[in-house]
Amino acid sequence: MKIADVDTPAILVDTARAEANLARAQAYADTHGLTLRPHIKTHKLPMWAARQVALGAAGITCQKIGEAEVMADASITDIFIPYNILGAAKLERLAALHARVALSVAADSAVTVAGYAARFDDPARPLPVLIEIDTGAKRCGVSSLPDLVELARAIDAAPGLVFEGIMTYPPRGRTADVNAKLGEAAGVLKAAGLPPRRISNGGSPDLYHAAEVTNATEHRPGTYIYSDRMQVAFGLGHLSDCALTVLATVVSHPVPGRVVLDAGSKALAADAAPVPGHGYLVEYPDAIVTSLSEEHAVVDVSDCPTAPAIGERVRVIPNHVCVVSNLFEVVHLVDGDTVKEVVPVAARGRLG
Amino acid sequence: MKIADVDTPAILVDTARAEANLARAQAYADTHGLTLRPHIKTHKLPMWAARQVALGAAGITCQKIGEAEVMADASITDIFIPYNILGAAKLERLAALHARVALSVAADSAVTVAGYAARFDDPARPLPVLIEIDTGAKRCGVSSLPDLVELARAIDAAPGLVFEGIMTYPPRGRTADVNAKLGEAAGVLKAAGLPPRRISNGGSPDLYHAAEVTNATEHRPGTYIYSDRMQVAFGLGHLSDCALTVLATVVSHPVPGRVVLDAGSKALAADAAPVPGHGYLVEYPDAIVTSLSEEHAVVDVSDCPTAPAIGERVRVIPNHVCVVSNLFEVVHLVDGDTVKEVVPVAARGRLG
Repeated sequence: MKIADVDTPAILVDTARAEANLARAQAYADTHGLTLRPHIKTHKLPMWAARQVALGAAGITCQKIGEAEVMADASITDIFIPYNILGAAKLERLAALHARVALSVAADSAVTVAGYAARFDDPARPLPVLIEIDTGAKRCGVSSLPDLVELARAIDAAPGLVFEGIMTYPPRGRTADVNAKLGEAAGVLKAAGLPPRRISNGGSPDLYHAAEVTNATEHRPGTYIYSDRMQVAFGLGHLSDCALTVLATVVSHPVPGRVVLDAGSKALAADAAPVPGHGYLVEYPDAIVTSLSEEHAVVDVSDCPTAPAIGERVRVIPNHVCVVSNLFEVVHLVDGDTVKEVVPVAARGRLG
Repeated sequence: MKIADVDTPAILVDTARAEANLARAQAYADTHGLTLRPHIKTHKLPMWAARQVALGAAGITCQKIGEAEVMADASITDIFIPYNILGAAKLERLAALHARVALSVAADSAVTVAGYAARFDDPARPLPVLIEIDTGAKRCGVSSLPDLVELARAIDAAPGLVFEGIMTYPPRGRTADVNAKLGEAAGVLKAAGLPPRRISNGGSPDLYHAAEVTNATEHRPGTYIYSDRMQVAFGLGHLSDCALTVLATVVSHPVPGRVVLDAGSKALAADAAPVPGHGYLVEYPDAIVTSLSEEHAVVDVSDCPTAPAIGERVRVIPNHVCVVSNLFEVVHLVDGDTVKEVVPVAARGRLG
């Protein structure tokens, strides 16, 4: 099948670019003695998770149990869920996962730890728990050192849990701060007799500064495999590294300077980027996607030397690629103009 | 099943509220002699489409062929697709649909009309085509009256097509302009010997001003069935009319004044509303959802008399409900604390 035979809107993944992005990151990690544990949220595909592990990753990261279940079904054997998992239903599924893969989870509160401690009670196969600390991103995470030590002690005291270490979802562009905070946290834990075995940092924007965070033992990049407008704006590579595009058709050219594509927020998602517009048209670099409704992208082509014609197909690099993967049933793996394979997005829509 | 037994995140639909929203709109339409043709993009459920028709709607509106196919499978017999449908693959599916339901479509260009004319050639069962005109929303639509007449003539001249009328996706809050533009367009078409049989207007924000658009013969509201923060901000009813909420769990309370929910942009979508924040917490009206990442909603609860506890479940009215329906496999129909039924979102993710 050729790309010309694919109906729109559709996801195209340039596998050579994705492979190059994976190889570059793994080479950087190898050079700096850093362990990668890629976040699968971006691709949601077992094939890429397996590829990441084959290239040298220690395991993978999934944000939701449902994603981890899909990956475990696909023979991924080491999975970290950096999330507070609460409630009987989820803890039951977590226990089932723990029985079949090397699983680790996160906690940032005594409530979460108490839930783990109540469900996991086998000292012969304890559940490894990392404490999430806030290094400046102001999302989740413990920010007081005494609270951190108290939580580590609670984990250590639970027969069915093991205190594995600390993790953070770091603020962008502040590697020195992040490193200092991780070092400080590790220091007090060590002094308390609970040295962290794993110190997990994350994020694609600062992936190629990950080695500056010398206190971390692993890094969890996600978006680096495909990249997107947001990552490029944050300084990760170039638009020519972006491996995923949304193939769309020009459905209207109502007035000079304006065209409309059949890829709206249901295909490109409404996430804002730190650059104007809702996507980058590969064939029309001067075009600006000025607004999205669910099934329409309105594109200002007044600065383009020629406007795309009605019926013409264009490729759009989205602002935020992870949410785009979540909106499609399948991706088309392409090599030049050829579609090599159509792959279901197996971990799509796994909300719980 | 009780709501307490539903794992999070999940969609809850208060059927009594949805029914009240439908009944109110139909009563308004009946009072003003207006025909409703509801847009199913908001609910994507055959059961609601059937209910809308049972209450008096002339038929339904679907934006994509894939949605129309689902609705046709569910015995909906009159479907309007207000979209320029291009390309051999989609035209083939369109022809299959046309063979089994009363179908009508839109066009705003000679290219689209030529595509219809080439595929549909049976004068005994012509395809009804409405011309989209731009009444100020600056998305799709013809804006020149001579172009409009020329396009109507092209439709009329095609043996397998019938010129059905005009349609618009109106700008919000400008019913007088919209009415004038529809009247002007109808006038030139009548003068050209091609009077429009249907004049289709749309939108939920101005639903209860639809009767002011006296030149329209039908109205296509979508979001009115569930409503959302955006619609309420635009003046459609109150938050207490919102029928769909996202049930979420508080997973973190890292510092006083901040909690984190397990419903991020994968559950609530990143669409902005003309009011601050990414959702309204029903139980905590003073809370502000300050940011979303894919699996986290960060909520400022510093103005709330009490903060929700870790593990507590809250209901969130989203900014834009249509895109939320698209993110979940099922909805839970609720009556008070009871889940009456779990219904698959049959027309979810139909992009083409």
